Amino acid sequence: MRIAPHAHRTPVLTSSAVNRILDAEVFFKCENFQKVGAFKFRGACNAVASLSAPELARGVATHSSGNHAAALALAARILGSRASIVMPDNAPAVKKAAVEGYGAEITFCEPTLEAREGALAALLDKHGLVEIHPYNDRRIIAGQGTAALELLQEIGDLDTVMAPVGGGGLLSGTAIAVTETRPGVSVVGAEPEGADDAYRSLREGRIVPSVEPRTIADGLLTNLGSLTFPILRERCAGIVTVKEESIVAAMRLLWERMKILIEPSAAVPVAALLEKRSEIGGHRVGVILSGGNVDLDRLPWSTDAS
Amino acid sequence: MRIAPHAHRTPVLTSSAVNRILDAEVFFKCENFQKVGAFKFRGACNAVASLSAPELARGVATHSSGNHAAALALAARILGSRASIVMPDNAPAVKKAAVEGYGAEITFCEPTLEAREGALAALLDKHGLVEIHPYNDRRIIAGQGTAALELLQEIGDLDTVMAPVGGGGLLSGTAIAVTETRPGVSVVGAEPEGADDAYRSLREGRIVPSVEPRTIADGLLTNLGSLTFPILRERCAGIVTVKEESIVAAMRLLWERMKILIEPSAAVPVAALLEKRSEIGGHRVGVILSGGNVDLDRLPWSTDAS
Repeated sequence: MRIAPHAHRTPVLTSSAVNRILDAEVFFKCENFQKVGAFKFRGACNAVASLSAPELARGVATHSSGNHAAALALAARILGSRASIVMPDNAPAVKKAAVEGYGAEITFCEPTLEAREGALAALLDKHGLVEIHPYNDRRIIAGQGTAALELLQEIGDLDTVMAPVGGGGLLSGTAIAVTETRPGVSVVGAEPEGADDAYRSLREGRIVPSVEPRTIADGLLTNLGSLTFPILRERCAGIVTVKEESIVAAMRLLWERMKILIEPSAAVPVAALLEKRSEIGGHRVGVILSGGNVDLDRLPWSTDAS
Repeated sequence: MRIAPHAHRTPVLTSSAVNRILDAEVFFKCENFQKVGAFKFRGACNAVASLSAPELARGVATHSSGNHAAALALAARILGSRASIVMPDNAPAVKKAAVEGYGAEITFCEPTLEAREGALAALLDKHGLVEIHPYNDRRIIAGQGTAALELLQEIGDLDTVMAPVGGGGLLSGTAIAVTETRPGVSVVGAEPEGADDAYRSLREGRIVPSVEPRTIADGLLTNLGSLTFPILRERCAGIVTVKEESIVAAMRLLWERMKILIEPSAAVPVAALLEKRSEIGGHRVGVILSGGNVDLDRLPWSTDAS
C-alpha cells in the first residue's frame, strides 16, 4: 500500500456489551485513531503520494472546513509539498488552528459554496497549485478504501461492511475494496434522514442534491459526486437512513461502553444497527468508524449545547 | 497468569502528538478498555479465582461505591460465585445499576466509613461470606500488578513506570511486578495535591491518613493500607503530587489527542508528566491508565459541572 509508511494501521475493536445491545457481532475499524483523527488522511496521503515531483513542488490546494483540510495539510507536510486551504471565515477556531498547525496556508472566504469554489479557482490559477478534491477523485477513493482492506485482512467471514456516506469517497472506496476482494460480503451505507441525498440518488438513479440538509453528522452534508455515484450504484447493496436521536444514542453508546471518542458522522452506521433495521443482513458486521473529532465543549447530550 | 482467560489483555497505545507535548516517549497501558472499564477487574478476578470451592459457594463481599464493586460483582459471576456489595445510599445511580447489572446483591447504608464497615461486618457474620478488600489484600495486589507485567512484556527499555495511588493496590502491585522483573526500571506514583496522604506517608515513614481529601480524582481518596504501605516504601522511587487543573488538562489532552476516554484518576500520572516535574527521570515512560468510567453528563470542563 502506498500510504503504509505514513498512515496508522488502526486497530479493530470489539465489545461484548455493545454486541449484546446491537444484536450482532460488530468489528469496529477505528479510524478515529487515524492521523488527524479521521479516515480522510488515507485519501489525502494517497493523492499527494501519487503526484509527480514537479506537481509536489507546485503544491496542493482544496476547499474544506473539515477533516479533509487537516488531512491534506498533514499529507503535504509529510510528503514534502505544501498545501493551501480555502476555508469559510466562520469555520471553528479549533479547525483553523489544526490546519495552521500542520503548516498549511489558509485563504478565508464567505461561507458559501460559490465563494469557496471561486476562491479556490483563483488560487489554482494564480499559483499553479494541484487541486485535491475531498471525494470526487480516484486517488482519494482508493486511499479511503484501504481502511476496509485492512479490516478484511484482519477479520474473516464478515457478512456486511458498513460506512457512513456524505460525498461518497469513503463508501465508494470501501465498496470497491470489499467487492473486489470478497464478493460475498455486502456493503451498506448509512446516512442521516436529514441529509438523505445518497439514499434518494440511488433510488432515483441520478444524483439528487441535498436541499437544506440538517443533521448533527456535520461530515455528511455534501452531495455525491460524478465518480462516487456510479460506484455506489454498481457496488453498494443499499443505503439505510437513520434518525438524529439514534445518532446521538449510538455515539454515546460507544463512548460509554468502549471508552472511545467517535464523532457524530462515525456514529451513523452504529445508529443503523441500533435501530435494528432488517435491511442490514447478517450477524458479523464490520463498521468503519470514520473519525473522532468532536468539540468537547459542545457535546450533543449536554444541556448547554444548541 | 490466573486471570488470563477472563481479563482483557489491553492494548498499549502511543501518540506522537502527546509525546511532543509531554516531552517524553510515553506508552499508555489502556486499562480503561479493561472489563468494567478499570484495572480493578484484574485484582478482583485474581482474588475470586484464588478461592477454594467451599469459599466460592459461600460467596464474596466488600464495601465500595466505585470500580471495585463492579469488578467484584463481575468476577463473582464469571467464576461461579455470588457477590454482596455494601454501598452508601448516596452512590450514583449509574454505579448501582452497573453492580446490579452484573448480578450482585446490594446492601445500602449511610455514607460513612463506620456505617459501611458495620454493614459489611454484619453481612459477613450473618451469611459467612468471604471479604475481598479493595486493596489491602495480597491477591488483589498481585492481580493489579498484571497490567504492568503485560506492559513490560510488550515494551522494552522503559526508564520509568507510573501509576496513580489511592489505597495503593495498583501502585504496590505495579512496583512488585516491575522491580522483580526489571530491577533497572523505576516506579513512580502520582497523587493529587488535595489527597496527598501517600506522599506524606512515604515522607514521614508511617501511614498518614487523609484529612478531608478534595480532588476530582474520586478513585484516589482512600488511605494506604497495612500491606500496601511497606511495599511502596521498599519498592517505589517516589510519589509526585499534582494540581487539580493539571489533572483536568491531562484528561482533556488524552481525550482530544488520542480519542480515548480516561477518568480523572487515570489522568493523574499524565498530569505529572504535563507539569514536567524533574523527579520523573527518563524519557521512555510507561503509564497505567487506570480506568475510563466517567459521567458524560458532568465533565470537568463543562460549564454546568459543579
